[in-house]
Amino acid sequence: MFVKNCWYVIAWDYEIPTAQDNGKIFARTVLGEPIVVYRTAAGLVALADRCCHRGAPLSKGRLEGDNLRCGYHGLVFNPVGQCIEVPGMDAPPPKACVKSYPVVEKNRWVFVWMGDPSRADLAQLPDNFSSGSPDWCNEPGYLHYDTNYLLICDNLLDFSHLSYVHEKTLGGSTAIAQARAQVDAITAPGQRGLRVQRRVEKVPSPPSYQRIHEFKGTIERWWDYDFLLPGTLLMKSGGKPSADNTVDSGQVELHSCQTVTPETEHSTHYFFQQGHRKGQGDDELAGAMHQMLIRAFHEDKDMIGAQQASLDAAPDFEMLPLHLDSALTRFRKLVETEAARD
Amino acid sequence: MFVKNCWYVIAWDYEIPTAQDNGKIFARTVLGEPIVVYRTAAGLVALADRCCHRGAPLSKGRLEGDNLRCGYHGLVFNPVGQCIEVPGMDAPPPKACVKSYPVVEKNRWVFVWMGDPSRADLAQLPDNFSSGSPDWCNEPGYLHYDTNYLLICDNLLDFSHLSYVHEKTLGGSTAIAQARAQVDAITAPGQRGLRVQRRVEKVPSPPSYQRIHEFKGTIERWWDYDFLLPGTLLMKSGGKPSADNTVDSGQVELHSCQTVTPETEHSTHYFFQQGHRKGQGDDELAGAMHQMLIRAFHEDKDMIGAQQASLDAAPDFEMLPLHLDSALTRFRKLVETEAARD
Amino acid sequence: MFVKNCWYVIAWDYEIPTAQDNGKIFARTVLGEPIVVYRTAAGLVALADRCCHRGAPLSKGRLEGDNLRCGYHGLVFNPVGQCIEVPGMDAPPPKACVKSYPVVEKNRWVFVWMGDPSRADLAQLPDNFSSGSPDWCNEPGYLHYDTNYLLICDNLLDFSHLSYVHEKTLGGSTAIAQARAQVDAITAPGQRGLRVQRRVEKVPSPPSYQRIHEFKGTIERWWDYDFLLPGTLLMKSGGKPSADNTVDSGQVELHSCQTVTPETEHSTHYFFQQGHRKGQGDDELAGAMHQMLIRAFHEDKDMIGAQQASLDAAPDFEMLPLHLDSALTRFRKLVETEAARD
Repeated sequence: MFVKNCWYVIAWDYEIPTAQDNGKIFARTVLGEPIVVYRTAAGLVALADRCCHRGAPLSKGRLEGDNLRCGYHGLVFNPVGQCIEVPGMDAPPPKACVKSYPVVEKNRWVFVWMGDPSRADLAQLPDNFSSGSPDWCNEPGYLHYDTNYLLICDNLLDFSHLSYVHEKTLGGSTAIAQARAQVDAITAPGQRGLRVQRRVEKVPSPPSYQRIHEFKGTIERWWDYDFLLPGTLLMKSGGKPSADNTVDSGQVELHSCQTVTPETEHSTHYFFQQGHRKGQGDDELAGAMHQMLIRAFHEDKDMIGAQQASLDAAPDFEMLPLHLDSALTRFRKLVETEAARD
Repeated sequence: MFVKNCWYVIAWDYEIPTAQDNGKIFARTVLGEPIVVYRTAAGLVALADRCCHRGAPLSKGRLEGDNLRCGYHGLVFNPVGQCIEVPGMDAPPPKACVKSYPVVEKNRWVFVWMGDPSRADLAQLPDNFSSGSPDWCNEPGYLHYDTNYLLICDNLLDFSHLSYVHEKTLGGSTAIAQARAQVDAITAPGQRGLRVQRRVEKVPSPPSYQRIHEFKGTIERWWDYDFLLPGTLLMKSGGKPSADNTVDSGQVELHSCQTVTPETEHSTHYFFQQGHRKGQGDDELAGAMHQMLIRAFHEDKDMIGAQQASLDAAPDFEMLPLHLDSALTRFRKLVETEAARD
Repeated sequence: MFVKNCWYVIAWDYEIPTAQDNGKIFARTVLGEPIVVYRTAAGLVALADRCCHRGAPLSKGRLEGDNLRCGYHGLVFNPVGQCIEVPGMDAPPPKACVKSYPVVEKNRWVFVWMGDPSRADLAQLPDNFSSGSPDWCNEPGYLHYDTNYLLICDNLLDFSHLSYVHEKTLGGSTAIAQARAQVDAITAPGQRGLRVQRRVEKVPSPPSYQRIHEFKGTIERWWDYDFLLPGTLLMKSGGKPSADNTVDSGQVELHSCQTVTPETEHSTHYFFQQGHRKGQGDDELAGAMHQMLIRAFHEDKDMIGAQQASLDAAPDFEMLPLHLDSALTRFRKLVETEAARD
């Protein structure tokens, strides 16, 4: 089950070659649809990666100026997907064309609109500001999951797992699981999702924070994020000295942009970055934070992969909803409602 | 098709760590059900390896005393499978629990009861005496099969294959295939199965026997075994000089315990040992016999794997029952009857 | 969908061991049926590779003279597939037998007849003369495809792809795609298929031709072939100086025999050779031509494999017939008609 009338991230900007990189054509599957993305002087182009003639992937062809030639029998498609040449034929038949997708780039993420093109709405693009900002230090990350995307959304919608899955990386305290998150609907125009806020007091500072500011005692930590359809997390998190700590006045502020894009019902693309404000920490901090994030996200991937295998083996298993599932239960309902409305 | 109300071997005793081995939790799937097994001061515990909350495998969690904590969101289960803690919640809901299995250890085999726990019956445990006996020398063996368990039962119920599959290991004479086995029902209380007896005269002594006793001429060999539900072979086999051999008075006596446990409909665990009486042969004999057994059982695995692939490719193929199939035909009927009665 | 009443190539002659090679038994699956082929003094034998007893592959057994003994329980089958021995039984039951296939060898190809044996018709064997001829230099080639055979037939029935898939090997000019092929039905007795002829003028000579004759200017090239059921290409191709070239009188003549044999609905065997007349080129030419052919056919395999994956992911995709598809559209109809008539 997918919500189709949405922007989905298909790539980081650097993954789409420029005309100068001549050769490789970028292709990735979104919601089960294989798509090629390439750049022209006029901007990005996204076309179905399946020649209308006999189904060969267009990504095995080559760019000729702004057009794409199929590598099997040589049909040529223009940037809106119309076939403009069939070798040996005077004029291609009008129905020789491939689907073209609305495509935009915003703050280093390349988005495609998977539903009705006439409904493509730029106001629905998420505010992933820190990715493209000179004020923030971060590095682009990508993981491929062999699991359904909703299990990853579940994971991102309940940070109680930080205490267990990420005990030695992002978490470090059982207080995180014990705290209750506040969950609210988001009603901003064009944005559909949930706001999730969680705060813990008097916990140890995790190793990654210590690289930004050497806290002397326990700290207060927070994770405030919007989780928006189809599966984008925009989060402010951080820490400051606990209220009764009078000798320390430092603060850590992080911003993270993460998004899950279903590849198929059984596999998912995961794009992410988490960064700190420029000027904080040393020169190697951004790289070190990124490595820590990669390590932590592999902890998630390992657990969610095991969960998926467990669920696949037990088709009749029913999950048991608990208080900690309120955000993810509401988000799954939202997906259901919006998918039905598509 | 499985008989559920049975004891199935899930492990050799040494596979289940003690509390001191802190860390790894033993998990294996039986009849399609993933199960964790661990030790407490009070004995063995066997629980479903699937958290009732969101389906994560409990084997990715950790033991806390006699209890098991899920590694995803931190739920804790006691040795009978009841959830006794949900982080951040005052009391877990009563229906938060996982299935608990009757589990016993006997002569180095760890058994779980897969059917109705109230029917778990210790009298049905097989008499695998030689595994745990100081009078016998043997080593525990395990093989994993990517085949249905009934094909392995078939193999164990008809030793005519010794002449062909094991020509160079356990067999060595076409006389084995030519001999007819005597097949009788077993009617002992709690034991359901068949007694199979086969005897051949004037055959060469196989290399393994020669390591125990250097026979000078041909020998008489026998294989007398019970094959019990769900798939356990308990066998006395051996050899002695042929009747007309007056110069030799040695004898070889072996005892073997083997059992097949379905993992799924398409895969099987196979636990086995075959040993000789203490004091026979040299110090390295047990190891050498075990290596020979492993080699022979790979011959079976290779043939049965090929048979499974052949059958998978021909769903309409019907086996042709011959005289040599009487034991396995009767056993398959027994499985059918008992599975229906479950 | 397969046409069953046809000869299919199951092997090159050299793949079937002689009695002296004692040991390995040749086995290959055709139209989903596993088949063993072996040689006796009286000629080739082809039997179903599945023992009628319990389904074990006979190819895991051994030859005993002209007969084949199953390696599992020792049943013996004679060259017509009748069981002549069951160990320990006086006489095998009459219905103990395996299917026997008509099998013939012609010009290094070994053919089996997959339909009704009484309809096996030698007149339907293709005229693959160059494979066995002392006047031609060529080497036997084989590739295994994980794709349906019709996609490979499609490829062989439309050489416009030479301009794109084989730009740097067999092709070299977009003129090939721009030329129209002449397509005619073949009505010779016993032969069902299409004659395809394509000719291009004033194109560069490809590197492989230059090794046979060093053309000084552009050349005229042709590809004239019969494509016969079930999937055999017999082709004369070549090149000579363009009409206005008065300084050059050389000519290149090639002959190629290629055939596709479905292994299953999802996989295919591909047997091929392409050679030149004896006396042309240097001693290493045959090997070099063969290597070039292998390289080119991997280009096809790569494209067709990608096409198959693309089609598998889009079960509702409908191909768009264009003028260049006339031969393959007609051939697919022929397959459909003949399969229905089987």
